[in-house]
Amino acid sequence: MPKIMPPPCNNMGLKFSPPEQAPAIDGIHLGCAQTVNQTRDDLTAISISANAAVVGVFTRNQFAAAPVLLCRKRLQRNDGIRGILINAGTANAGTGRQGLRDAEKMCSIYAALLGCRAYNILPVSTGVIMERMPILQYTAGIKKSFQKLAADNWFSAARAIMTSDTMPKVAHETIFCEGKKFTVTGIAKGTAMIYPNMATMLAFVATDAAVPKRQLSAWQRAVTKDTFNAISVDGDTSTNDSFILIATGKKGECRAKNELRKAIFNVCARLAESIVKDGEGANKLLKIVVSGGASYDACMQMARAIALSPLVKIAVAANSADVGRFLMAIGNAAKNHTLAQALVKIGDVPIIKGNDLHPRYNADLAARAMSGDEVVLSINLGDSPFAATFKTCDLTDRYIMKFGIGGGAQK
Amino acid sequence: MPKIMPPPCNNMGLKFSPPEQAPAIDGIHLGCAQTVNQTRDDLTAISISANAAVVGVFTRNQFAAAPVLLCRKRLQRNDGIRGILINAGTANAGTGRQGLRDAEKMCSIYAALLGCRAYNILPVSTGVIMERMPILQYTAGIKKSFQKLAADNWFSAARAIMTSDTMPKVAHETIFCEGKKFTVTGIAKGTAMIYPNMATMLAFVATDAAVPKRQLSAWQRAVTKDTFNAISVDGDTSTNDSFILIATGKKGECRAKNELRKAIFNVCARLAESIVKDGEGANKLLKIVVSGGASYDACMQMARAIALSPLVKIAVAANSADVGRFLMAIGNAAKNHTLAQALVKIGDVPIIKGNDLHPRYNADLAARAMSGDEVVLSINLGDSPFAATFKTCDLTDRYIMKFGIGGGAQK
Repeated sequence: MPKIMPPPCNNMGLKFSPPEQAPAIDGIHLGCAQTVNQTRDDLTAISISANAAVVGVFTRNQFAAAPVLLCRKRLQRNDGIRGILINAGTANAGTGRQGLRDAEKMCSIYAALLGCRAYNILPVSTGVIMERMPILQYTAGIKKSFQKLAADNWFSAARAIMTSDTMPKVAHETIFCEGKKFTVTGIAKGTAMIYPNMATMLAFVATDAAVPKRQLSAWQRAVTKDTFNAISVDGDTSTNDSFILIATGKKGECRAKNELRKAIFNVCARLAESIVKDGEGANKLLKIVVSGGASYDACMQMARAIALSPLVKIAVAANSADVGRFLMAIGNAAKNHTLAQALVKIGDVPIIKGNDLHPRYNADLAARAMSGDEVVLSINLGDSPFAATFKTCDLTDRYIMKFGIGGGAQK
Repeated sequence: MPKIMPPPCNNMGLKFSPPEQAPAIDGIHLGCAQTVNQTRDDLTAISISANAAVVGVFTRNQFAAAPVLLCRKRLQRNDGIRGILINAGTANAGTGRQGLRDAEKMCSIYAALLGCRAYNILPVSTGVIMERMPILQYTAGIKKSFQKLAADNWFSAARAIMTSDTMPKVAHETIFCEGKKFTVTGIAKGTAMIYPNMATMLAFVATDAAVPKRQLSAWQRAVTKDTFNAISVDGDTSTNDSFILIATGKKGECRAKNELRKAIFNVCARLAESIVKDGEGANKLLKIVVSGGASYDACMQMARAIALSPLVKIAVAANSADVGRFLMAIGNAAKNHTLAQALVKIGDVPIIKGNDLHPRYNADLAARAMSGDEVVLSINLGDSPFAATFKTCDLTDRYIMKFGIGGGAQK
């Protein structure tokens, strides 16, 4: 069945790098410094060459953090963005007007060093919600970060933006077009959607190709739908989620536009998947594929709803091919879809057909299909060409232990 | 602030009974028998006098169980309902056409004993999904249940419909009007929304007052909104949820219509609350009250969304007045509400005002307000007269242990 998801880019030399590689992007420099954190860098400065196109998508949480409010405003101006300043440890969310003043103050300091205006800087924060920024400690760190700005610091930055992450998240792709090489490099962080263990999702992706801002923004919205907006750890959405996409243009125009867009998609897809894999308490990745629905959005909505079922996520943790639980979750997620022809599989093993066990259901095969690190639950609703994939992780008691602060031990 | 929730009925002698009392309803007889379960009764027969009004609301799960499909059809007929047959242990969901045949077969057997037609019987099932009904074992049980039919068996029935419940759920109210006494008695079961531990929500409520079917149905829809549809344990909805409301009319018309409606409401509210309190792994009750929104539905939608946040439920388990987590969940649930004037309290303790800590926020007082068996999180959005309350329980690692079948022990 044809899918409308962008296909994997295996033509034109596309290649996914192991995480320790993070090639430089012409026009982007990054520097990190240690400020509040006792053990590692926690402040990251990024500088962006003049005339780069910079676009962003942000959390839909109505209590969006102060830095998110400033980013939204600054990205609407036509003045170029020249820098990004990221702190890990304090979210600067639920901090009222003081939070805006603190974020502006930090941007001013960094802008003075870069020789631009505060509104040319995007502030980004992740960490504890409803605590004031330790602004004095950060102030000294901004200068240190500035002094360390270098092109090959992507990997250091991936570490410095971490909070409860257990591994840095890096991805890149390279494409060749008309004898020129273009690169897309990205970093991200996130393990659960939210405080208290400072787990906002952040992503920064850049290319050296030239892409007009309007086009870049359209690509970003489309790519986000299938990557960062198609994952969930716990269904909670942070106050600070930010995804910033930059095209410095230093290598000029890339005429293989479709390939470039796919390279950006692939980098984002890998980063998004690495967030789910690093989800709090997660042992396994669960991919939910819904196909044959009335539209792409309908398929995605159904896949997302299944991914939010705690009983499905717990079944995956337990390697339990619990057909009744899957039936329940699919029936709940279906809303107005008819399920008379629904075909449900775990991996390649059919388990449900319509409102009944599949005639070829085999409990042993189904259990085996549940046992790997990655489980694919696919639901085909009919003959339409639409399909969507949503990724989540299993749910274990470690998630609850992590956030329960002794809650698990009380009984 | 005025609320549109029906006020507590403390006039006209309304009184909530301790759970061991379950007064008979003239026109209703109940009988229980042991069939598949090794330790206790698991099959319940109910007989209903002629000309009673019987109405039902059922799960919205698209994979509704065979008995739910039959109930819907039979309640639309004008022929009266004369009996209900409830089995606990097998849900008869995801069982295709065979499931319908099995349910019809059981109804036929019971109907022959009662002297009516199969379509006068409502079948109700709860238990394991996607397993065939053990029809032979049930067949003998139907006759035994029939032979035990008696008016004072409500409490026995509350036990016999249990699956993973730890306590039977019973409630009743009495009202007096024009020298006549009217009674409302109800039973329910449910601890999580679904299999595998057989945790569908079922409720059966009856009164001896006469209420026209159309009126009873309108009351049922209104009452359900604020009771059985305003609770959640885990956000999953079973394939079998059924709430059946009966007015036998044996005592004639009750002219204190509003009081009768309130009595039905109160019985349902107590039953609903007892389901949340008996939630899998639950230690505490969390009431989320949203007021001042654009409409009742908007308030309820927001309260419901907050109740689905795992991080909020885990905070309640941990007695943690985690203001950042509450801010996050409220910001997510707010959708199109403006939160500029939002006032958030735990119990009587203000914690958040607008997008900031409340000026009188006191961490010790907030922690104390989290420490009881019942926690009330209230969010006032503005000056409108609308308000809604949604009830849920805390989320502990016991929930995951219960359904994870060793999943928690794997790491």
